[in-house]
Amino acid sequence: MKISYKLLHKDKNTNARIGQISTNHSTVDTPMFMPVGTQASVKTLSFEEIKQIKAGFILSNTYHLWLRPSEQIIQKAKGLHNFMNYDGPILTDSGGFQVFSLAKAKDISEEGVKFKSHIDGRSLFLTPEKSIEIQNKLDSDIAMCFDECPPYPVTYQYMKQSVERTLRWAKRSKEAHKNDNQSLFGIVQGGEFSDLREYSAKKTVQLDFDGYAIGGTSVGEDKITMYKMIDDAIKFLPEDKARYLMGVGDPIDLLEGIERGVDMFDCVLPTRLARHGHAFTPNGKINLKNAKYKDDFTPIDTTCDCYACKNHTKAYIRHLIVAKETYGQRLISIHNLRFLIKLTEKVRQAIKEDRFLEYKANFIDKYR
Amino acid sequence: MKISYKLLHKDKNTNARIGQISTNHSTVDTPMFMPVGTQASVKTLSFEEIKQIKAGFILSNTYHLWLRPSEQIIQKAKGLHNFMNYDGPILTDSGGFQVFSLAKAKDISEEGVKFKSHIDGRSLFLTPEKSIEIQNKLDSDIAMCFDECPPYPVTYQYMKQSVERTLRWAKRSKEAHKNDNQSLFGIVQGGEFSDLREYSAKKTVQLDFDGYAIGGTSVGEDKITMYKMIDDAIKFLPEDKARYLMGVGDPIDLLEGIERGVDMFDCVLPTRLARHGHAFTPNGKINLKNAKYKDDFTPIDTTCDCYACKNHTKAYIRHLIVAKETYGQRLISIHNLRFLIKLTEKVRQAIKEDRFLEYKANFIDKYR
Repeated sequence: MKISYKLLHKDKNTNARIGQISTNHSTVDTPMFMPVGTQASVKTLSFEEIKQIKAGFILSNTYHLWLRPSEQIIQKAKGLHNFMNYDGPILTDSGGFQVFSLAKAKDISEEGVKFKSHIDGRSLFLTPEKSIEIQNKLDSDIAMCFDECPPYPVTYQYMKQSVERTLRWAKRSKEAHKNDNQSLFGIVQGGEFSDLREYSAKKTVQLDFDGYAIGGTSVGEDKITMYKMIDDAIKFLPEDKARYLMGVGDPIDLLEGIERGVDMFDCVLPTRLARHGHAFTPNGKINLKNAKYKDDFTPIDTTCDCYACKNHTKAYIRHLIVAKETYGQRLISIHNLRFLIKLTEKVRQAIKEDRFLEYKANFIDKYR
Repeated sequence: MKISYKLLHKDKNTNARIGQISTNHSTVDTPMFMPVGTQASVKTLSFEEIKQIKAGFILSNTYHLWLRPSEQIIQKAKGLHNFMNYDGPILTDSGGFQVFSLAKAKDISEEGVKFKSHIDGRSLFLTPEKSIEIQNKLDSDIAMCFDECPPYPVTYQYMKQSVERTLRWAKRSKEAHKNDNQSLFGIVQGGEFSDLREYSAKKTVQLDFDGYAIGGTSVGEDKITMYKMIDDAIKFLPEDKARYLMGVGDPIDLLEGIERGVDMFDCVLPTRLARHGHAFTPNGKINLKNAKYKDDFTPIDTTCDCYACKNHTKAYIRHLIVAKETYGQRLISIHNLRFLIKLTEKVRQAIKEDRFLEYKANFIDKYR
C-alpha cells in the first residue's frame, strides 16, 4: 500500500496545517519530526526508546546502508524493518545528499555520480536507477527520488542546469521504482532562485509523486534565505500531498517551516548535539559540560516527560558526558528528540485551535 | 544497617555454597556476578537494564569517582545510589587497584600512595583514611579496605613486607570507617605464596570485617596459580561471612571460584568484550565481527532470555559493531552480563541439588 495524506485542519492565520499520513505500519500525525537512524540505528537508542519518545517516522540513509551492511543483506532480512526490528514507518533518503556532502572525488554526469566511498575509498557509481533499486530492497515506507543537491551558493546558470538534471533524474527514479508497498517522493530544488524553485516545483508535481520534499536547504544559506526557499517552493505543491523539508531540526526553523505549510522534518541535529552534551530546553539550548551544572540535581527540563528528565539529574548526566560514558549521550539523545517531537505535538494542538502564531511567539520568546 | 550473610546450603561434593546477602537495598542470592559501573554507569546500560539482567550487586570504582565527579558532589547528591538513581546494592572498591595499575608515578610509603591522575596528571595522595572517607561519602552498601595490590610476580621478600603493610592499612581502614550504614570488607593478599596467604587471611580475619575478599588475582598469573591462590586463602576465611574474588569474570574462572567457596565476583570483562564485538555463548566466545555472521539472522544465543537475544539478530548486531554504532555495544553488554548472571542462577540451582560438579563439567565441555 502507498501512503496517503489526509489534511485535517488548516490554521486560520497561516499556512500551518495538521494532517495524518497512513502507512503500512501505522498512521502518524503531522507536522512531525523524524529522528535519523543513519545506519539502521537512531544513535544510542533502542527501538523501544524510539517508540517511547513517540516518533512518527524515522529516517534511514540509503548511502550508508548501501555501503554497510549492503542492500542485499537487508533484503535477505526481508527489509529494513525486519533487519532492525522496528515496526514503525521508515523513510529512506536517496543517497544524493551524502554523495554530494560526504563522499570524495565526485564526478557528476547525466548518467549519475561517480565518487569514492568515505569508508574505504573504493569507486562507486550512484544513479537514479541504482538509488531506487536499493531503496526498493530496503523496503522503506517512503523512498526519495535521486537528486542533485548543489552547495550554496552556486551561479544561476549552474543551478538552472542542475534543476533540469534533477527533473530528468526524478523521471528516471519514478520509472525505476518497482515496489508497490513503497511510496516515492519528488524533491524540489532551485536554490535561492525563486523562478527556479517555481519551475522545479511545477515540473516535479507534473511527474505526480506520492509526496514532495523541499531540498537544498540547510546547505550553508542564512535563515532568511532558507525561509524564502520554502515560500518559493511550497506554494506550488498540492494540498493533498505531504510536504517534507529535508535536513531541518532547529526548533525555530521547525516552527518557521510549519507556519509555511511543511508537514515533515528530519535532522541529525538533536542526536549530534546530544553527543556533545548540548540539550534543548524551553529556555534555549544548554551545554551540560558547563561547570555550573556539576551540582545541579534538577532534570534538564522540569516540564519534560522523557526518560532522562523523569529519572536523572543534570549533575549526573553532566558527569557521564564529561567522563565520556555513552549512557550520557543516550540520555540527552532521548531528551532532545522528545523535545522536538513534543514541540510538534503542542504545535498540532495549537493549529487545531487556530492559535499557531500565539504559540510560536511564546515559544520563541522563551527559547531565544 | 550492615550487610549480613546467610549460608543456605553447601554442595555435598565441593566447597561450593549458596547463600543470601541482606543489604539496606535488597536481599541478593550468592554466588553472584557483579557488573562493573566504573564511573557510576555500567557502560551503555540504564539502571532498568541493570535490573532486567537481574544483577545482584553492582560495583563502582572509588578511584574514578574520586577524580570525577568527586566524592563531594556525590555526597551532595545524598550518595551514589541517589546520584545515579539506582536502588540496588552497590559495592565500592578502595581505589587501590586503579592506583597501582592505572595511575602513573607511584610512590608507596607507609602513609599511603602518591601518584599522578591518569586524567590530568595532577599529583594525588591516597591513604587508607582517605579511601574510607571517600567511600563513606559515596555511601555504598559495601566498602573495601585500602590495600596494596602488587604486580605478579614479585619476590617473596617484597610480598611479605607488602602483606604486613596491607594488614596495617586494613587496621587503619577499619579505624577510619565511620558509616554505620556501610559494611567493610577486608582483603587477603599474599600472591602465590601459600604461607603468606595463610598469614594474611588469619590476620585479616582477626581484625574482624563484615566480609572478606581475595585480592591479587588476575594480575598476570596463570590459571593454575590463580586457583591455588584461592585455595590457599579461602580455607582460613569464616563460613558465616561472604567471600569475594576480585576482578574475575571468565565463565570458567567463575565456576572454579564457586567450587572453592567464593560467593561474589566482579570484572569488566563482559562489558569490555562487548565493546569489541565479542559475545559469550554456551559454545564459547564468538567474535561478531566475523564475516560469517553478516547474514546470520539468528540471535547470539537461542537459549538466552536477554533483551538482545529476544529482539535482535547476529547480522544486525554485527552491522552495528562494524558501523561503530554504540547501540551494538549496548546489546552485547546486556547479553554478556546476563550470560554470567544466568550462569550463577543455574549454578545456584545445581548446588541446591548437590550436582555442582556435573553442571560444571557439562558447561565446560560445551564452552571449550
